[in-house]
Amino acid sequence: MEKLGKLFLIPNTLGGESISDIIPDDVIKSTILLRHFAVEEIKSARRLLRKMDRQFPIDECHFTLMNKHSKESDCMKVLLKLTNGEDVGVISEAGCAGIADPGAELVFLAHSQGIQVVPFVGPSSIFLALMGSGFSGQHFTFHGYLPKERKDRIRKMKDMEMDTRRHGGTHIFMDTPFRNMNVLEDLLNELTDTTQLCIASNLTIHNALIQTHSVIEWREKAYDLSKIPTVFLIGTGQ
Amino acid sequence: MEKLGKLFLIPNTLGGESISDIIPDDVIKSTILLRHFAVEEIKSARRLLRKMDRQFPIDECHFTLMNKHSKESDCMKVLLKLTNGEDVGVISEAGCAGIADPGAELVFLAHSQGIQVVPFVGPSSIFLALMGSGFSGQHFTFHGYLPKERKDRIRKMKDMEMDTRRHGGTHIFMDTPFRNMNVLEDLLNELTDTTQLCIASNLTIHNALIQTHSVIEWREKAYDLSKIPTVFLIGTGQ
Repeated sequence: MEKLGKLFLIPNTLGGESISDIIPDDVIKSTILLRHFAVEEIKSARRLLRKMDRQFPIDECHFTLMNKHSKESDCMKVLLKLTNGEDVGVISEAGCAGIADPGAELVFLAHSQGIQVVPFVGPSSIFLALMGSGFSGQHFTFHGYLPKERKDRIRKMKDMEMDTRRHGGTHIFMDTPFRNMNVLEDLLNELTDTTQLCIASNLTIHNALIQTHSVIEWREKAYDLSKIPTVFLIGTGQ
Repeated sequence: MEKLGKLFLIPNTLGGESISDIIPDDVIKSTILLRHFAVEEIKSARRLLRKMDRQFPIDECHFTLMNKHSKESDCMKVLLKLTNGEDVGVISEAGCAGIADPGAELVFLAHSQGIQVVPFVGPSSIFLALMGSGFSGQHFTFHGYLPKERKDRIRKMKDMEMDTRRHGGTHIFMDTPFRNMNVLEDLLNELTDTTQLCIASNLTIHNALIQTHSVIEWREKAYDLSKIPTVFLIGTGQ
């Protein structure tokens, strides 16, 4: 039987300049040996590869775009490379490949072909926020983006608050940065005074800030989150 | 006002020998400057520090034990160091500090004192398994350990399967390694043929294996998981 290629899931930055603080040295060394990449955005993938190695031969590489506009045939093209024995690296626009990004579809299909999948360690804003919150990591749920409609968003927040109060788990969510202040306003207006809220912004970037306080304290301490990548968490101490 | 210390959350290995593949270089450089540590287990913390720097002056360091047997006064001792301006590193027995380990309590209390909390990037078996599964990362829940009683465990598995089928989210769980084969047996006997199951074992360790298949396929492919650190996931492709 022919040797199959491996599918490597490569971490990208969360928007910061440096990589030596967020990507392990051996991950960098393994990545710069690859020449085939499935990427969410070519520009950010090239930027990452140049950061890993200033002399990286980008012109010798093949990039296949994997985003919400790409077709099934693009995915098949990458699978064909893998079944032909070529290694491929998946690079998402930011953070860990395969989590909340189009690379996941490729990973799922790779398993069906018996391709070995190798996830590399790197930064995840969700996980860094959970670590830094001080909330329970024994049971947690990530909800992705909140509903756009204010009424639905508030109902969702209150459901999470209620669940934490009853079962002690942690709820994690985010939104597009331009809606952050609407989310914050609703959290501070609609949640109970004593509910514990963690706000983690600019993780791994200059000016990163993680703070956990009760809603009543946050009403005094809230700061401008507009356009700042932010993770919100509702939870309890242990 | 006196300068406060910072609380650094330091990643440990998942049981593997090497650290250059799982801990970023700058995280290692920052860690070996610290002299105060709050640790889940002294032995594994010392081992990590020696791996980071063979000449690391362990005898000059202060270690405070933070585990389920430690008292509130231990936590207060660490907080006092921080409020006195000393930096402290939290090291858990394995993986990311603060997630499903006793360090979380310290982090929570640190926030109440206005201490800056800095989570460092490192390996999390939960996150690596999620990346490598190919399942949805838009919505996922980590359930920790499953119930010990077989009847309760099976009910929990079926609840997760039903929720994935209805809402498409991913469910992640684990168990003590000596119960892995009971868990696997129940999954293969009790879940529907077409349910997608990911089994991720030995992550970041020699012989790491992540595979996603339907339950009916797993009945043919299952391998010995006893005593092997394993993460299980139920989910769907996207």
